[in-house]
Amino acid sequence: MAEKFFSERNLRFTLYDVHDVASLAGSAYYADHGRETFDILLDTAKKIATEHLYPYYMEMDRNPPRFADGGITVHPAVRDYLRIAGEGGWINAVFPYAMGGQQIPVSVFFACQFMMAAANYSLSVYPELTSGAARLIHSFGSTELQKTYAEKMVSGEWQGTMALTEPEAGSSLGDVRTSAEPAPQGHYLVRGQKTFISAGDHDCADNVVHLMLARVKGAPAGVKGLSLFVVPKKRVTADGKLEFNDVNCTGCYHKMGYRGSPIAQLSMGEENDCRGYLVGEENRGLSYMFQMMNEARIGVGMGATAIATAAYYASLEYAKVRLQGRRLTEKDAAKPQIPIIEHADIRRMLLKQRAIAEGSLSLMIYAGKLLDLHLSGEGEERERSEILLDFLTPIVKSYPSEMGVVSTSQAIQCLGGYGYSDEFPVEQYMRDARIHPIHEGTTGIQGMDLLGRKVTMKNGKAFGLYLEEIAQTTAKAKSIAGLAGRAARLEETVELQKKVTASLVEHAMKGEIDRFLADATLYLEMAGVICIAWQWLMQGVVAQRALDAGASGDGRTFLEGKLFTMRYFFEYELPAVEGLALRLMSPDAPTVEMEAGHFDD
Amino acid sequence: MAEKFFSERNLRFTLYDVHDVASLAGSAYYADHGRETFDILLDTAKKIATEHLYPYYMEMDRNPPRFADGGITVHPAVRDYLRIAGEGGWINAVFPYAMGGQQIPVSVFFACQFMMAAANYSLSVYPELTSGAARLIHSFGSTELQKTYAEKMVSGEWQGTMALTEPEAGSSLGDVRTSAEPAPQGHYLVRGQKTFISAGDHDCADNVVHLMLARVKGAPAGVKGLSLFVVPKKRVTADGKLEFNDVNCTGCYHKMGYRGSPIAQLSMGEENDCRGYLVGEENRGLSYMFQMMNEARIGVGMGATAIATAAYYASLEYAKVRLQGRRLTEKDAAKPQIPIIEHADIRRMLLKQRAIAEGSLSLMIYAGKLLDLHLSGEGEERERSEILLDFLTPIVKSYPSEMGVVSTSQAIQCLGGYGYSDEFPVEQYMRDARIHPIHEGTTGIQGMDLLGRKVTMKNGKAFGLYLEEIAQTTAKAKSIAGLAGRAARLEETVELQKKVTASLVEHAMKGEIDRFLADATLYLEMAGVICIAWQWLMQGVVAQRALDAGASGDGRTFLEGKLFTMRYFFEYELPAVEGLALRLMSPDAPTVEMEAGHFDD
Repeated sequence: MAEKFFSERNLRFTLYDVHDVASLAGSAYYADHGRETFDILLDTAKKIATEHLYPYYMEMDRNPPRFADGGITVHPAVRDYLRIAGEGGWINAVFPYAMGGQQIPVSVFFACQFMMAAANYSLSVYPELTSGAARLIHSFGSTELQKTYAEKMVSGEWQGTMALTEPEAGSSLGDVRTSAEPAPQGHYLVRGQKTFISAGDHDCADNVVHLMLARVKGAPAGVKGLSLFVVPKKRVTADGKLEFNDVNCTGCYHKMGYRGSPIAQLSMGEENDCRGYLVGEENRGLSYMFQMMNEARIGVGMGATAIATAAYYASLEYAKVRLQGRRLTEKDAAKPQIPIIEHADIRRMLLKQRAIAEGSLSLMIYAGKLLDLHLSGEGEERERSEILLDFLTPIVKSYPSEMGVVSTSQAIQCLGGYGYSDEFPVEQYMRDARIHPIHEGTTGIQGMDLLGRKVTMKNGKAFGLYLEEIAQTTAKAKSIAGLAGRAARLEETVELQKKVTASLVEHAMKGEIDRFLADATLYLEMAGVICIAWQWLMQGVVAQRALDAGASGDGRTFLEGKLFTMRYFFEYELPAVEGLALRLMSPDAPTVEMEAGHFDD
Repeated sequence: MAEKFFSERNLRFTLYDVHDVASLAGSAYYADHGRETFDILLDTAKKIATEHLYPYYMEMDRNPPRFADGGITVHPAVRDYLRIAGEGGWINAVFPYAMGGQQIPVSVFFACQFMMAAANYSLSVYPELTSGAARLIHSFGSTELQKTYAEKMVSGEWQGTMALTEPEAGSSLGDVRTSAEPAPQGHYLVRGQKTFISAGDHDCADNVVHLMLARVKGAPAGVKGLSLFVVPKKRVTADGKLEFNDVNCTGCYHKMGYRGSPIAQLSMGEENDCRGYLVGEENRGLSYMFQMMNEARIGVGMGATAIATAAYYASLEYAKVRLQGRRLTEKDAAKPQIPIIEHADIRRMLLKQRAIAEGSLSLMIYAGKLLDLHLSGEGEERERSEILLDFLTPIVKSYPSEMGVVSTSQAIQCLGGYGYSDEFPVEQYMRDARIHPIHEGTTGIQGMDLLGRKVTMKNGKAFGLYLEEIAQTTAKAKSIAGLAGRAARLEETVELQKKVTASLVEHAMKGEIDRFLADATLYLEMAGVICIAWQWLMQGVVAQRALDAGASGDGRTFLEGKLFTMRYFFEYELPAVEGLALRLMSPDAPTVEMEAGHFDD
């Protein structure tokens, strides 16, 4: 294992220098906090990540969850970490005081989650899922549900899950068939199957509480007929005992990676005795669930960012010590070999990883800050940050996810044959990273969300606000020697995105919906690259200003490295938008015109 | 497992219609063969692939080689397949009659190898490696070595390997340290370590014969001091017995994929009794080895093509039967779900895979035909085909390898969560595919080969011949309605490649070698995309002509599908050259300018 799995300096640079999260303490909502408490949190999180998560990274992969006798056994580190998370107040850290939480800024909490996920993604998700589920109960559930279920979840004793997917309803949630029939006692009798439920069952929590979508008998078809239920594995009886609730674990998937977390199959109501407790009102389940889904989508982006970061450091460490080859201009074969970090192609692969990882991290912290501004802000600022985050969520989920696979693959490539062997962690990072373009809404779904809903929503208001944000950064960059050219280049690509958007929306106007959305995934890819270029310019502005102000020593080298990485992004990653735009504006649409039979032979 | 792992129709279309390999029978060298014998070979290969390789695909992954007591145990299917390959004459099929071979055209043999590799890549490499090693002995070794070692290899009784890599000498072969000291009896005493040796030891062959690079004592440093030896695990004594040759297997790597084939660590001469038998002359080892390395590089391209093909068919089969979602214009949630192949985004992902797999296959068969023209041709044609193949080898190796990872990842994406689970084979295809950008020369090494040597060799003659070949195709396409536009587009991108090349070569002229080669990997990527676009236009010409000539039924649908896939490639893949060219011609070179310390923080 590598010594380092993330950079503290970069994390603080991103939080404090780029996104100025310390300023959040100026709001009434976050008035109890400040940089000092943030630093304590970061230090504590680092300690937990280093001591309680990282040591089990490879071990949990080699010893994945086992399903037997209707239950799943996981690595004992899970129980320890859930306990630590519960006792340390991490599960409800960002909940408002009114929900018993600590009202920690989301952006700072994201930074802590980032460390946990970089240390051991599979292990990091257990309390994260619990937190989302508990929050949902607090937001929309009855006081009784909060008291009976959420409390034990927040303490880390019980696991929470998000139970949406069914064998026939993955991307198409409207096809959920799990049924719920009202019983006279006030609960509902639930019956159905769920699949791919993360942490859906395991032996390291005393109970598992599913936040489950089901359809009340007689409800409309599609998403409008979905209701949200608390469906515990064990229900709490009137006298406070735990009693089996007819939630049966029927299997556990063996997966390519992300193997430390069990993905369960569940069967509810085999004995017709599975009780579900309605959250909020009937038929409004999906709108409630979207709170948790949006959080989970951002969490996926963070997980992907974190894995890419850890893989980057593993390959960087190797590149510094592995001797191989000589400078291209060195003709004397008797001269000693040099560290591979001296080869331009290795540097390119390292810069690619760094650009993806640190660009994504900056976007994640920005997303956290938007949540913070929404929570702590007032009036227009509050609305603005909400709309912006809504707009950005598909990018926040997908750019790190898609590029995380590319980035971890580059980590393997830096190590060559050793990277492909399991003596080094990089092959596992790539296997782990591959889940992210799939779970919590595939990249295809995110593309449709961005182009089909977010770009056009409120008459393009969200898109407009986003462009304003970028313009603020380019305006700053233009006044800085050395960055003006990059600012102009970013503006050019933004203009290209506007042109592409207009050209696509034209199809929508003409009612050509298939054509409009056929390449939504590529539109998302293009938007993602531009968005990360913006994050890099933002970082470049801060770095250049600090250098101009006379930063010295280590700090100076770090800032110069930042500027090289920004240059890398503009030179090597941003040009991809040219080809994407060419495609997106082409009148030719083979995927729409062809028929399924054309794949036959 | 999917029913289908390759398309017979497409294979024959590529062989006969696109590359007209039947015409090879017109040469004296291949006069004994013809389409009829080719078809029999293809049918036999299909039967072997289906019955003896495909059934063990997942099983060999789940039960990888085990190292114990100085030896490696592999799946028993290996012994069966080696026997079948030996008895069926597959190992020396393409060897000339003079070497006891059957003088089968390489292009046809490639098609057979393609089926084996699509069925089970790990299993397919055992006889392939043996073939390359035996060929090397036949080409440069003494009659005695041929009789003593090559015969048992060709019969499938003994395994052959290519033993180059050492712990400190992977990409940098000049640093090979294994030593060879001449002994009075005529052999050499070999001492050293080798690592990452494919099929370097296993229990399904009675002996393992290594074609090994070592340095004779006193030889010059670097590649000019490397000699080639036959180093058997067991040597043949004067009375024909087998005797341990002090070649010790010291370990076996556990890998991300490609797990059916053992990658061994070897230690020679621990008892100072490891005998090596010189092949050819001292210090010319690398030039001999290049015969095997070039074959192996093409073999890697084929393996990558084959894996991408099998993954494509697995995802296609799924996309046809998996019901999920409705048409975008269908608002009635009560309507039944449709097969996902009806969604444009899924079609895009299927077309991407098909375009990569079939485009690569076409290039592989073309490469095989160049070898055939070299073997069977005369004078200028002979030289032309050799130079062309030399030029193309880095592309033939790398395009399928790099894009094979992307393509298999798209296969996973088509299956969503199921694709990430090991119930379907696609996650294994991606894990298996990941080896290809690494072994037999990483993509970085191939890029340096293309730009640093091939483009400029013989004053650019090879590049010129390549451009002539493309021009022949565009000339044909221009006269066909519906293809003229694509031909013009290909010409445009070729012009762009010429411009980029000139701009890079200018750095070389100025002696800026670091700058010249810094982005060689990206140059290779650009060249690869254009090369495959050319292969697609070639296929498009044949398909459109056949359609215009009135093809009907199934055949018509297949040809229409071909044209859709060609359109896909031009619309979705070729545009990547725009961004690459922009990068490659930019004056900014962060990877050259920065220092290793800039990665510190």
